[in-house]
Amino acid sequence: MSDNKIRVTVWYEFRQEKHNPEVAALFPKGIHGCVGDILSECDDVEVRLAALDDEDQGIPDEVLDNTDVLIWWGHGHHDKVRDDRVEYIRYRVCSGMGFIALHSAHQSKPFMRLVGTTGDLSWGDNYPEIVWNVNPTHPIAAGLPPMFRLESEELYAEPFNIPAPDDIIFTAWYPTGHVFRAGCTFRRGYGKVFYFQPGHETCRSFYDENVRKIIKNAVHWCAPVTTAYPRPDGCPFVGSIV
Amino acid sequence: MSDNKIRVTVWYEFRQEKHNPEVAALFPKGIHGCVGDILSECDDVEVRLAALDDEDQGIPDEVLDNTDVLIWWGHGHHDKVRDDRVEYIRYRVCSGMGFIALHSAHQSKPFMRLVGTTGDLSWGDNYPEIVWNVNPTHPIAAGLPPMFRLESEELYAEPFNIPAPDDIIFTAWYPTGHVFRAGCTFRRGYGKVFYFQPGHETCRSFYDENVRKIIKNAVHWCAPVTTAYPRPDGCPFVGSIV
Amino acid sequence: MSDNKIRVTVWYEFRQEKHNPEVAALFPKGIHGCVGDILSECDDVEVRLAALDDEDQGIPDEVLDNTDVLIWWGHGHHDKVRDDRVEYIRYRVCSGMGFIALHSAHQSKPFMRLVGTTGDLSWGDNYPEIVWNVNPTHPIAAGLPPMFRLESEELYAEPFNIPAPDDIIFTAWYPTGHVFRAGCTFRRGYGKVFYFQPGHETCRSFYDENVRKIIKNAVHWCAPVTTAYPRPDGCPFVGSIV
Amino acid sequence: MSDNKIRVTVWYEFRQEKHNPEVAALFPKGIHGCVGDILSECDDVEVRLAALDDEDQGIPDEVLDNTDVLIWWGHGHHDKVRDDRVEYIRYRVCSGMGFIALHSAHQSKPFMRLVGTTGDLSWGDNYPEIVWNVNPTHPIAAGLPPMFRLESEELYAEPFNIPAPDDIIFTAWYPTGHVFRAGCTFRRGYGKVFYFQPGHETCRSFYDENVRKIIKNAVHWCAPVTTAYPRPDGCPFVGSIV
Repeated sequence: MSDNKIRVTVWYEFRQEKHNPEVAALFPKGIHGCVGDILSECDDVEVRLAALDDEDQGIPDEVLDNTDVLIWWGHGHHDKVRDDRVEYIRYRVCSGMGFIALHSAHQSKPFMRLVGTTGDLSWGDNYPEIVWNVNPTHPIAAGLPPMFRLESEELYAEPFNIPAPDDIIFTAWYPTGHVFRAGCTFRRGYGKVFYFQPGHETCRSFYDENVRKIIKNAVHWCAPVTTAYPRPDGCPFVGSIV
Repeated sequence: MSDNKIRVTVWYEFRQEKHNPEVAALFPKGIHGCVGDILSECDDVEVRLAALDDEDQGIPDEVLDNTDVLIWWGHGHHDKVRDDRVEYIRYRVCSGMGFIALHSAHQSKPFMRLVGTTGDLSWGDNYPEIVWNVNPTHPIAAGLPPMFRLESEELYAEPFNIPAPDDIIFTAWYPTGHVFRAGCTFRRGYGKVFYFQPGHETCRSFYDENVRKIIKNAVHWCAPVTTAYPRPDGCPFVGSIV
Repeated sequence: MSDNKIRVTVWYEFRQEKHNPEVAALFPKGIHGCVGDILSECDDVEVRLAALDDEDQGIPDEVLDNTDVLIWWGHGHHDKVRDDRVEYIRYRVCSGMGFIALHSAHQSKPFMRLVGTTGDLSWGDNYPEIVWNVNPTHPIAAGLPPMFRLESEELYAEPFNIPAPDDIIFTAWYPTGHVFRAGCTFRRGYGKVFYFQPGHETCRSFYDENVRKIIKNAVHWCAPVTTAYPRPDGCPFVGSIV
Repeated sequence: MSDNKIRVTVWYEFRQEKHNPEVAALFPKGIHGCVGDILSECDDVEVRLAALDDEDQGIPDEVLDNTDVLIWWGHGHHDKVRDDRVEYIRYRVCSGMGFIALHSAHQSKPFMRLVGTTGDLSWGDNYPEIVWNVNPTHPIAAGLPPMFRLESEELYAEPFNIPAPDDIIFTAWYPTGHVFRAGCTFRRGYGKVFYFQPGHETCRSFYDENVRKIIKNAVHWCAPVTTAYPRPDGCPFVGSIV
């Protein structure tokens, strides 16, 4: 971290605004711009925006090397993300960078690469959602009520093809009869990964106070910690220490 | 499974025997042949051997589609394994195929792909090893004593860059002052993954009765279970069920 | 186990039938009798019934010493269960006996003693319930569909004050906006513990085919495994083994 | 917390000093005094000492109600601790109080009550110990090296009869061939529990810089967090919220 600020890069495909006026109206600066605005409310966070069509897809090595937490929102163009970028993200996470996958990033290449599964789930139309806070002492749940409501959010439902999470923090209820593990964490090397389900492009979840608090909490929880451990660098040869 | 037999494919690079007479003497049929011989002691297991230099690297789709448990031993040629084979293995594991990574497979592409980390560890010369059975009621530990000794095994030591395992079954002790999570499980989709550390190419661990029992147990534990759940096939659209 | 049969003791308060005709009509032999009937459909299970008003509350040492899996249904008389019985149950579970807590046993003394928390939850009237099978490869979920419906079951809802379970197998949905971890496992010493939520005394859940299958599966999963490990017996003094 | 200070109560039997001059010489103020001195180096911690022979065993309700983290060191007099005190500690932990069990507290009543098992382990004479930091990004490991050495510590060895910990932070190596899960965490309700193995009464571990850092880290990690959730208070009746 530089000057004790958490350096966050918010990545977004940033393509649908160009042809979908509904999305453009909801997110005039793009979803990444909206998430960046949430974080700009934190004094200790420094935000950079990145998009698929930027040079090196917005995430060249130099950017990732100077990113403490990478937030990812992708949907229609998962397959366009270059494999060398995915691999460098994985390397950076194992070295300590946090990674937050929002909503449809459940099938993004970096998320699938980090958790090891497909991220498959069932999905449906937009419905009212209730988000239950089932792990109230976790730092990501700080300041959250026992449950909160979202007026409309895309239905994401079990089965959700992820490994057993280290912690399940939020469980979603939909009036359709479905449930979903809506907030989950995964430690990967020195880095922490958080998946959070709300955030569809035609919904107002990113303007919800509880969702905003969760994203801020998650950035702080995912930020790298200083370890006295040497940085991971392959497989050192060691001799007896006794 | 066919006729109720567990169909196991044992994969091995099978190259070092050609230039390393010590390995060739220890494993005249290759390490895969030796592991296959262990499993041929089980009436309910059917073994197929596969090697890097076979057509399609020994693991074309048809072979993987008809494999219940894939056992992997690789070391010097991890990078030769084709990415499309790695991806198909991941797909098959998420669909239910078991995967057992032996010894130096901690850095094989399929293992790293499935767990999501590098598999980095510290390593050293061969030393006597004590393997502690720290999860005695796990099916993989069935019939095992509280601990057993290996006369000589390659030193593998913490830090071991893996996600928090679902279960730690064996912890290794070395006279050098080191410890290691020597037997760990990871669920990935409908498939089960087991990593087991003993099995260096210049050591006799695969002839040890306890190691042999563990490999047999692991094959039975990793074998796919019949689920009433539909096979995972992407993200189905669902409507209300109430 | 005797003659390879799993010896199950089903414990029930067996008091409400005497003054509640609705319960008596639903469970003419008591809830324990009904659960025993489910298990009598298994050739490899041997059932004994036990009730609060039996001598030594139905669970003297000799009975527990000869029980492989103890199933518990209590509600109105948790506080009547003698502490020495609770402690002996805990001892037996740590030694390998399985323990299945049904429905309102979430606040029974043995369950609270084994998990270490209060088992507190929110509850309400009877409603239709949907039970999602979120861990389809777990032995307790064998043969279960992705989800099943119960026409009417008592509402049990998060927050549920339990430790992080080893595995969450079922998640419940209620039309009221609530969710619940309806099937969870906890390993305690050599013994396995399963909590399962359906089973209210005024509901027909124990006559549901899926519930019956789950109880049978759970008995088989919870049954003690033979370990080569010495039986736990305090803290032995050990010297160097190298 | 009062004035933002973490209020720590350090509990100790405080009896062996009276007849064991070796212990009295090492810990002139008692082990609780020594641990208190470690914490008095933290500006944000307020220490209270408590001993078995104090009124209400040093832990009346008023003290526990005003304790954020309770540290426990017991050995020879576990059975003297009153059951009502044990139950009130459990209640306070489920309500958010942290609990740190040091060394021989693995068999203290409060620890066993909280984790649900016996805490049994194998033990032996004093030997040099190596403590491996296997979870370097956990807050309890902050600032710790990859491993550190203790000149002499009582041998504690697997099998250690505890539930699967939420996190294993330290693994111990002894020259005798033994290993041990020397630092483990368990969440219980709103409270956090940490077990840490070093700290024998005839050893100097509490004067070791790394052990001192771990105790300070653990107090900060175990301190209650403010939750928006209502304080747990039994099982409230709830109606539909939709």
